[in-house]
Amino acid sequence: MKETKKILLAHGSGGKLSEELTREVFLREFGNEVLSGLTDAAILKFEGGSLAFTTDSYVVNPLFFPGGDIGKLSVCGTVNDLAVMGAKPLFITCGFIIEEGLDYSVLRKIVASMRAAAETAGVTIVAGDTKVVEKGSADGLFINTAGIGRVGKEVDLSLKNISIGDKVLLSGTIGDHGMAVLGKRKSLDFHTEITSDCAPLHDLIASVLKVSRKIKFMRDPTRGGLAATLNEMVRESEWGILVEEAKVPVSEGVKSLAELLGFDSLYIANEGKVVLVVAPEDAERVIEEMRRHALGKDSQVIGEIIAAPKGQVGLKTLVGGTRIVDMPVGEQLPRIC
Amino acid sequence: MKETKKILLAHGSGGKLSEELTREVFLREFGNEVLSGLTDAAILKFEGGSLAFTTDSYVVNPLFFPGGDIGKLSVCGTVNDLAVMGAKPLFITCGFIIEEGLDYSVLRKIVASMRAAAETAGVTIVAGDTKVVEKGSADGLFINTAGIGRVGKEVDLSLKNISIGDKVLLSGTIGDHGMAVLGKRKSLDFHTEITSDCAPLHDLIASVLKVSRKIKFMRDPTRGGLAATLNEMVRESEWGILVEEAKVPVSEGVKSLAELLGFDSLYIANEGKVVLVVAPEDAERVIEEMRRHALGKDSQVIGEIIAAPKGQVGLKTLVGGTRIVDMPVGEQLPRIC
Repeated sequence: MKETKKILLAHGSGGKLSEELTREVFLREFGNEVLSGLTDAAILKFEGGSLAFTTDSYVVNPLFFPGGDIGKLSVCGTVNDLAVMGAKPLFITCGFIIEEGLDYSVLRKIVASMRAAAETAGVTIVAGDTKVVEKGSADGLFINTAGIGRVGKEVDLSLKNISIGDKVLLSGTIGDHGMAVLGKRKSLDFHTEITSDCAPLHDLIASVLKVSRKIKFMRDPTRGGLAATLNEMVRESEWGILVEEAKVPVSEGVKSLAELLGFDSLYIANEGKVVLVVAPEDAERVIEEMRRHALGKDSQVIGEIIAAPKGQVGLKTLVGGTRIVDMPVGEQLPRIC
Repeated sequence: MKETKKILLAHGSGGKLSEELTREVFLREFGNEVLSGLTDAAILKFEGGSLAFTTDSYVVNPLFFPGGDIGKLSVCGTVNDLAVMGAKPLFITCGFIIEEGLDYSVLRKIVASMRAAAETAGVTIVAGDTKVVEKGSADGLFINTAGIGRVGKEVDLSLKNISIGDKVLLSGTIGDHGMAVLGKRKSLDFHTEITSDCAPLHDLIASVLKVSRKIKFMRDPTRGGLAATLNEMVRESEWGILVEEAKVPVSEGVKSLAELLGFDSLYIANEGKVVLVVAPEDAERVIEEMRRHALGKDSQVIGEIIAAPKGQVGLKTLVGGTRIVDMPVGEQLPRIC
């Protein structure tokens, strides 16, 4: 029988179908010890130490949005994927796929924004490639970046290190990136002042790694939002996560735009936030350090690792009940990053 | 005055406009010592030695062609960019940008082909990313790969090493990839038996590096063909290159299809060939070693480094005259890789 299944937008959502595609197609063929970890970056051992290696493509629409553009995003996203693995981001490559007819000035602006972001993040752009496709064969501009970072010898971040009772920390408000892009796309940006949180997290993460040796795991909640990230964490674990809704920071602007458009902030993309799992005795020290940093000033302990139900993310709601926060199923926000 | 310049297909051709875009936009913003070398991969120094780091995006149309597909191409292309820098290719990342509606079975086939190519090339795919865009926002599938390779301590490949009198070697026939893709695109493939030369060159290159310490420089002549590669080499040099047309291998099939379609084989893309510059005393030894390898059996000394005219590529034609081979100007073959 011929396979008639098609790729859907939801296969790129960061939710259930993304996971299915990854397992059925990519891991099935490429599966190896490093890749199968499905971490934000691969950790590669070399003579002189370990390196983190990662890639992401960026297809965000529109190219410019409050707080950033596809160029800034493409640098920050890859920097953050390295940083959450405990690596110091060092080198970046970039691949441009440009639709014929794009304004030269638009490209210039985006490239300038990449340079600025690379400077802020302390990474050097060392290689690149440009392809141009016919009008109608791509939508303006897609950028891929790959990055290499150096992993300190003392760093040991892994889901395996997590124990019952560990605290779950979040570096600030959620949903800002997704709502800023969507607001711009729907021309609602004049109603609101929502700005994408797009930012490089290397510095914030380096400072918390200095104050605690008991940070177990980190990940940046991008596509699929906080809900997808927490669900990826519990997927194959012997524990669950319980989050207190009251503790999860959401700005008033995001809250009202999300309500207006019918979104749940937990599922909306972020581009400058990090989730950390920390041993309970170090949680306060880490939160204090995070709050000292501009990118972590709204940090909160949002929940904890619990024994049961395992493999699930629970949310203690504002009204006092508990509900399950599942992996996102369809695609609510295509091309958010 | 507002800049009204637009990106044209030729900006992705590997020819003059590609060069202009690279210099005016990318190097202007990103310029640094490593990137400005415009080598096929960046060479990065770490405690334990040097690594090569490179990236390329693949937008070839159609996705499948005689001798390969976008998946095989995306692995071989990056493997080759590492190999020509004298690096042993080790790790690859891949980023997929998929148009909504692509058949799942097509993606499976391409991913299987990537796995096979990675196995042949001895590289491990360690990280990946998938984005899906709406129907009409991309053409089927684009793939980006980035790669890391280890550079041996004894390897020293650079245009700076080249001297007058050095020989220019080529590992086989030219134009096979470009004509295979174009033949397929124009449904001429039933007329011909032209097969893309798409192949990983790591093994061929490793063997020649073993027999000679006097290999000065290597590059794979992809987009823009042999003409673009030789022109990139002479661009800022104090010497020129003189090629003997009679020595450049072209298959009968490529020759006749190129004539039929009005192309010059020197400008047609290759995906499994390498150009080497070797000290004259080692040229024969290197050619012999190359010919022992299946991917180098048609290797030839095609020309030599000459003092004047500097900065130019000359061709001693079959009829005995000499003409200048310039950088390709427009875009003859969009989306050839």
